[in-house]
Amino acid sequence: MERNIKKLVILGSTGSVGTQTLEIVRAFPDRFEVVGLCNGYNAPLFKQQLDEFKPKYFNTLGEVESGYAGAKFAPAEEIAALPEVDMVVAATVGCAGMPPAFAALQAGKDLAFANKEVIVMAGKLLIEAAREGGGAILPADSEPSAIWQCLEGEESEPSRLIITASGGAFRDRAWDSLGDVTPDQALKHPTWTMGPKITIDSATLMNKAFEVIESRWMFDIPFDRIDVTIHRQSIVHSMVEFADGTLKAQLGPTSMLQVIQHALMYPDRQSNSELPKLDAVRMGSLTFEEMNPTLYPCFELALEYGKKGGTYPAVLAGADEAAVQLFVDGHIKFTEMPDIVANTLSAHDSIVEPSIADTIEAARWATEITLAHHNQSTILS
Amino acid sequence: MERNIKKLVILGSTGSVGTQTLEIVRAFPDRFEVVGLCNGYNAPLFKQQLDEFKPKYFNTLGEVESGYAGAKFAPAEEIAALPEVDMVVAATVGCAGMPPAFAALQAGKDLAFANKEVIVMAGKLLIEAAREGGGAILPADSEPSAIWQCLEGEESEPSRLIITASGGAFRDRAWDSLGDVTPDQALKHPTWTMGPKITIDSATLMNKAFEVIESRWMFDIPFDRIDVTIHRQSIVHSMVEFADGTLKAQLGPTSMLQVIQHALMYPDRQSNSELPKLDAVRMGSLTFEEMNPTLYPCFELALEYGKKGGTYPAVLAGADEAAVQLFVDGHIKFTEMPDIVANTLSAHDSIVEPSIADTIEAARWATEITLAHHNQSTILS
Repeated sequence: MERNIKKLVILGSTGSVGTQTLEIVRAFPDRFEVVGLCNGYNAPLFKQQLDEFKPKYFNTLGEVESGYAGAKFAPAEEIAALPEVDMVVAATVGCAGMPPAFAALQAGKDLAFANKEVIVMAGKLLIEAAREGGGAILPADSEPSAIWQCLEGEESEPSRLIITASGGAFRDRAWDSLGDVTPDQALKHPTWTMGPKITIDSATLMNKAFEVIESRWMFDIPFDRIDVTIHRQSIVHSMVEFADGTLKAQLGPTSMLQVIQHALMYPDRQSNSELPKLDAVRMGSLTFEEMNPTLYPCFELALEYGKKGGTYPAVLAGADEAAVQLFVDGHIKFTEMPDIVANTLSAHDSIVEPSIADTIEAARWATEITLAHHNQSTILS
Repeated sequence: MERNIKKLVILGSTGSVGTQTLEIVRAFPDRFEVVGLCNGYNAPLFKQQLDEFKPKYFNTLGEVESGYAGAKFAPAEEIAALPEVDMVVAATVGCAGMPPAFAALQAGKDLAFANKEVIVMAGKLLIEAAREGGGAILPADSEPSAIWQCLEGEESEPSRLIITASGGAFRDRAWDSLGDVTPDQALKHPTWTMGPKITIDSATLMNKAFEVIESRWMFDIPFDRIDVTIHRQSIVHSMVEFADGTLKAQLGPTSMLQVIQHALMYPDRQSNSELPKLDAVRMGSLTFEEMNPTLYPCFELALEYGKKGGTYPAVLAGADEAAVQLFVDGHIKFTEMPDIVANTLSAHDSIVEPSIADTIEAARWATEITLAHHNQSTILS
């Protein structure tokens, strides 16, 4: 039995996807072993996780406590590339997840991938790293996972990807009316329970633009063959159209657990009583409407620069990370986010064929200048 | 190029599925050659088809005319088993399609399969014949095709099949109110354009019970893991649920052309400007409701006897064929159909492990006795 156990490293273990990954591990103790855990700043939960899963290695941005169940501290990039590791779960949020994700792929590890900012920043490089390393990228995000599942077993290329979008927290309000919305309001997603960064990105549809860019690279398909439809119920997680006009859709409850389990266990599918169920016979009404772009300036902006390529997508991701932080911290209005991201993008000199280092540097520069620009605006006003 | 041409025999070439099969053949002249055409009684259309496709062999239940473009008359069972044939399209309606379908499978041909009565009559025997002959059964009916497409590439067994049903022509009317509906009313399907037998069977949901029985054999899954949902728009053609609660759905326009093309070309998918398209971004509302069994007595009756097995399913198919004919010809009321089918079923002594011959005989007996019973009732009344 020992040889069938998949040895995991989880990057971002105390976040939303990280904790749900550990729920799946807990449900299948014979299938998984946690070799490494890496987190950001949630020390109490991280300590509990180390006590429960007893990994050999850990990394944290928070305080390093003694008594971490004998785990050894090491850099995340090293842990992700350890010879004994089979799969790395990239559950980090934002641009910081890029170095260990690349380290894992370069070492030939399979990468269960939820950290969409990294593929937005460096999609082409990421796919190349996977091909060269020989590991697989397995989507652990609901829309790309749905597309991946719909493509399973098909010999023909898709003619079109149709990504579903709930429309976010303010889907029934005009953009102009959102100047006074609070972070708490924006953090109330109509259908999904997720971490704060992705929930804010969902309210602006920045997240949906990220998924379009992600899909362009992950499924090697041009932008003009990727569409978005507003599907308020978040039950159809995305669709694929083929040359003959046939469509396939993947459906499920609005839970990340199924998605994460599939990435961890692919191609196997196992019953798990912890997973929520969808009663397909009595789903009621599922709606699919065209997106109104005037409601979502972030979406249009992000796609414009996503298509430009070079280091623009990295700057987009870095600037958005700063903008979301500024909004959540109460420094800017909801409706200021696209403007300050746009300012950073227009100030950037893109590198046409960037290296990994160029990409990381562009995102870092973007986050810094976006925060600095805000601070300067604040001082001047 | 010659070696890539698929050589076809079409059983039931002048029916709805037969004519649409020839539309696909017409769209891909480099991919298909028609070796044999077999039809029932539509002589003028059949003559046109023979003139256009110039098959080597033909069979017809109608008058044999001279000048059939040099084609040779032969029994359908012989044509379906000719050494040069790659695929037989079973587009016949009703029980008469059984002998040539079995002949094709026993000769190791691939069978594109639209004639659901045959698999209802003799599902187990049909699957055995395919396994022994080495040919494949490829669904050319929208719901089984959807299930087949959803299962494509999946290594895990489905936990549940969810077959969609439009609800038929009278889906908003109580069964008791349907005594006076005319054949013309019953032949107006709300979403699909199909042949008369299947359209009447759709109005009673007999057709849906047939698909449940068909799926039980085609996908080797117990009856208690097959559900039906009322989906009025007929856009989702069916769904499959897996052990992890994930669902896949196949969607498309309400056209048989995609379904037939997929059976003919599998696993290839080709663009075809003759195929209608579905705009998935703007589909509007798709609804899924539990079926109300009191509206559809034929459904319950058919499933009851489908589950009993033996020769009961053949009697069900044979009696239904007679009942539909009696209704279409104006001899009985719409609401009498389940009663006269039930009478024939209760008069039958089932054979537990029937042969092919037993099955054909049971269906023949059922058709005959159902018609005779009606004639007797008419004489007595």
